[in-house]
Amino acid sequence: MQIAILLFDRFTALDAVGPYQVLGRLPGAEVVFAAEQPGLIGDDAGRLHLSAEAAPADVPHPDIVVVPGGPGQADQMDDGPVHDWLRAADETTAWTTSVCTGSLILAAAGLLTGRRATSHWLARSELGQHGAVPVTERVVFDGKYVTAAGVSSGIDMALALAGRIAGDATAQAIQLGIEYDPHPPYDAGSPDRAPAEIVTRLKTHSRFILTGRV
Amino acid sequence: MQIAILLFDRFTALDAVGPYQVLGRLPGAEVVFAAEQPGLIGDDAGRLHLSAEAAPADVPHPDIVVVPGGPGQADQMDDGPVHDWLRAADETTAWTTSVCTGSLILAAAGLLTGRRATSHWLARSELGQHGAVPVTERVVFDGKYVTAAGVSSGIDMALALAGRIAGDATAQAIQLGIEYDPHPPYDAGSPDRAPAEIVTRLKTHSRFILTGRV
Repeated sequence: MQIAILLFDRFTALDAVGPYQVLGRLPGAEVVFAAEQPGLIGDDAGRLHLSAEAAPADVPHPDIVVVPGGPGQADQMDDGPVHDWLRAADETTAWTTSVCTGSLILAAAGLLTGRRATSHWLARSELGQHGAVPVTERVVFDGKYVTAAGVSSGIDMALALAGRIAGDATAQAIQLGIEYDPHPPYDAGSPDRAPAEIVTRLKTHSRFILTGRV
Repeated sequence: MQIAILLFDRFTALDAVGPYQVLGRLPGAEVVFAAEQPGLIGDDAGRLHLSAEAAPADVPHPDIVVVPGGPGQADQMDDGPVHDWLRAADETTAWTTSVCTGSLILAAAGLLTGRRATSHWLARSELGQHGAVPVTERVVFDGKYVTAAGVSSGIDMALALAGRIAGDATAQAIQLGIEYDPHPPYDAGSPDRAPAEIVTRLKTHSRFILTGRV
């Protein structure tokens, strides 16, 4: 089972590594990090560099595609080789997935038209501009299309997907292996429950948070 | 504020990237990935490679040290350059931290003697063999020493630490930015609540899970 994780300049590291840590532990998993220009790909802070050893052409028929988000998503919205690869790969994937603003890339490539999908809470409404149906949920399954909300939600998405692929017991074993028994010290991970002034602060800077640019 | 994250062959990716994603967003944070041999460092599955741009000697006085765990921890237990660096850096750190079996490395370097600490649930009892006091908690603060349980717990640890360093509002803004509102699809992340047969399965293979070797 080949899992292709797309990387691009200024991706958000946890968007990619969360699902990787879960899906990579599935029996028979073979993970490939792919980028339009293989090599070291820098994250949104420019301090973390992940190696992409494959070009999209090297992984024409992955079983699972994972598209992370991050400020660099804004540069992946135009039609071109990455969209071509996503569309071609999607013809034979078992699952086409995204984390955070990765869903905007999938939508821009035309893969979420008319489908229910989610994204980072600050970007979710943009899905509608690209033909998808925005849903305020942390993980959204619509057929083989699975989208997750912001950054850390990729872990939840991947565990749910692992259960669909390999059964509950295997997914639970992976969860116990990574000791995923989350106890955040604050209840501030959702705009519905974070302090109002924090929500306002992030909304005010949303363009910077989402694109790294003002 | 310099944050040095130690990498070594066969580290577990999320152990390093979870805290990175949180602590790297603190105001003034400068993250450096350091390894005894700088370059591309392969994770426990050998499929993910993170770039370590610094040698320990390049970061003699970090404000925060983060030591991840993973199967490669077993090769980091002997005294040598990594332990020398950890001890020297610890003399001036504000916080010396670990995720998963990274606490065993800190303990072997003599930094947790007599201190309360945690680790991956399968490895926690080993802390006692290295002079630490094992505690069954997800995140343990003992003075400036902060240890987290298995893999995913580094996110909780880093958010708690972010709160101590920059205040609750900044930590909450980081949490909301990464939409850390966890909803695992199963309640299997702790040996206290996972199905008994899953716990038994992992215990049976614990040596393999922890070291990658049988």
